[in-house]
Amino acid sequence: MRTIFDLQQLIETAITKVDYPQHPARLYDPIRYIMRFGGKRIRPVLLLLSSGLFNKDITIAIEAALAIETFHNFTLVHDDIMDNAPLRRGKDTVHIKWGVNNAILSGDVMMVEANKHLTNLDTAILKDALQCFNTTAQGVCEGQQLDMEFEERADVSIEEYINMIRLKTAVLVGGSMKLGAIVGGASQHDAELLYQFGENFGIAFQLQDDILDVYGDPAKFGKQVGGDIISNKQTFLLLKLKEIATAADLSLLEEQLMNTDYQIKISQVTGLYDKYHIRELAAVRMKQYQETAFTALDLVSVQGPGKEEIENLAKTLIHREY
Amino acid sequence: MRTIFDLQQLIETAITKVDYPQHPARLYDPIRYIMRFGGKRIRPVLLLLSSGLFNKDITIAIEAALAIETFHNFTLVHDDIMDNAPLRRGKDTVHIKWGVNNAILSGDVMMVEANKHLTNLDTAILKDALQCFNTTAQGVCEGQQLDMEFEERADVSIEEYINMIRLKTAVLVGGSMKLGAIVGGASQHDAELLYQFGENFGIAFQLQDDILDVYGDPAKFGKQVGGDIISNKQTFLLLKLKEIATAADLSLLEEQLMNTDYQIKISQVTGLYDKYHIRELAAVRMKQYQETAFTALDLVSVQGPGKEEIENLAKTLIHREY
Repeated sequence: MRTIFDLQQLIETAITKVDYPQHPARLYDPIRYIMRFGGKRIRPVLLLLSSGLFNKDITIAIEAALAIETFHNFTLVHDDIMDNAPLRRGKDTVHIKWGVNNAILSGDVMMVEANKHLTNLDTAILKDALQCFNTTAQGVCEGQQLDMEFEERADVSIEEYINMIRLKTAVLVGGSMKLGAIVGGASQHDAELLYQFGENFGIAFQLQDDILDVYGDPAKFGKQVGGDIISNKQTFLLLKLKEIATAADLSLLEEQLMNTDYQIKISQVTGLYDKYHIRELAAVRMKQYQETAFTALDLVSVQGPGKEEIENLAKTLIHREY
Repeated sequence: MRTIFDLQQLIETAITKVDYPQHPARLYDPIRYIMRFGGKRIRPVLLLLSSGLFNKDITIAIEAALAIETFHNFTLVHDDIMDNAPLRRGKDTVHIKWGVNNAILSGDVMMVEANKHLTNLDTAILKDALQCFNTTAQGVCEGQQLDMEFEERADVSIEEYINMIRLKTAVLVGGSMKLGAIVGGASQHDAELLYQFGENFGIAFQLQDDILDVYGDPAKFGKQVGGDIISNKQTFLLLKLKEIATAADLSLLEEQLMNTDYQIKISQVTGLYDKYHIRELAAVRMKQYQETAFTALDLVSVQGPGKEEIENLAKTLIHREY
């Protein structure tokens, strides 16, 4: 039977085979560099699984998967510039290695490369595929914009935060699955249900990320546990605490937000989270999105093991590092 | 009869009608700002004229014209960041007005907006249109890359320079005209001829720009006459001088390249250009491209006044400010 690992390998091989030009080297080397970083390739895997629900030959969806993965990596290159991030997966970011100007321009070409992959799709579904892709891409840019704006705002509401992570993260998961469905020949209704699955699963995934950042097992969690607390990141947890804490505890929180002793800061803020059961409140919200996602998946009008594969992958991803 | 002004008005009106979202304002305001800067709208006008050669109803090409103009303005936004340019047409550039991060992200969304316009094209020609657009967009990015690299190189050859301006400027003119032809229903051969016209005309236009920068009428030339000399820009004129000047004159040139008295610098470098008839040599080269362009246009298999319209516009643009 086909495993998730098989699909990841299929995508890695396809990426290796993309024939980016050799010149100008400073334009295309960064693309080869970031595209071959590896990673879980969650979005293209979900795209292939979605396509596979409607057409057994998942190779028809490879170009769409490459479009999504290229677009995703383009957003990483540009986001890393905007976030001033020196490292990604422990390696230099593109703008550190090649400079900001090159990172802007290589990112731009990646957007073109993504569109070139899409253009290779079957003419019969090309327009639908493009509309899905463009809507998705636009949403992701809006999400990044809101994320940047929220860093400078003290009055972000939880609903605004959920909408931001929806746009920045979940829309691309939903868009990937809808695109896979379109390529596979799904009805508009089924494609939309897969979008709903992906978007809701994406929000659940991000909320789980917020929880793991505080409560994850340091040995398993990929990032530094407490990193969000150290950087005062306005996650669901912090926003929820601000919403329900007493004035006295809010003062304590404000004090800790300025604390440069990170060990104490992490333990104090986590203590406040515990006091208000923030972890449980976040988990409840996370499970709501997860359930909405699985309900949508359930309604997709196909039978067979494909839906189970998607459900199992989603559960593995959500319940990771626990 | 339809005039160039009418076509420009058609494009301005179409741009005004594009319904960019209101939120997030900092993402979309820069797009409205740069798209409504005005200008000659040469590329979309040539696109409409190309389409008009094959289909009298040029309104079918409006979406393609908007795609090209949006893409062009996207390149301006990102190039201005890379070139650290504070002003464009006497107004603040987007990154000065909204910051670099916003300029990167708004530019990215403009690329999506350009693709959205393309997606509105007729399904029958959509794949051809996308291929033309993607190839064009990729070439423009390569041109910008080479332009940046040449600034740090002392050994740029004239052929490398011509290839750079071909990619950075001329490919988009050619691509616009080919795209117009595709939308209008041209044969592949005619579409390719219009590409050849546009590309060669684009190179001629840029060479003329190099000449005008030194020899233009200060009262008519849009930019500061001598600006290229002041900034040591490696134009056709400078590269040609370096190629043919004696060692003694090259020393004189090197001295002037470091001169901070710009009045003397301009008069001395212009004196060297005069001594070696650089202006005439540039004009000969420019006319070669112009003739190649007009030969290609001549071969396009349509009759009627349309080709004359294109030829007249091209001549007006080439012989501007003389």
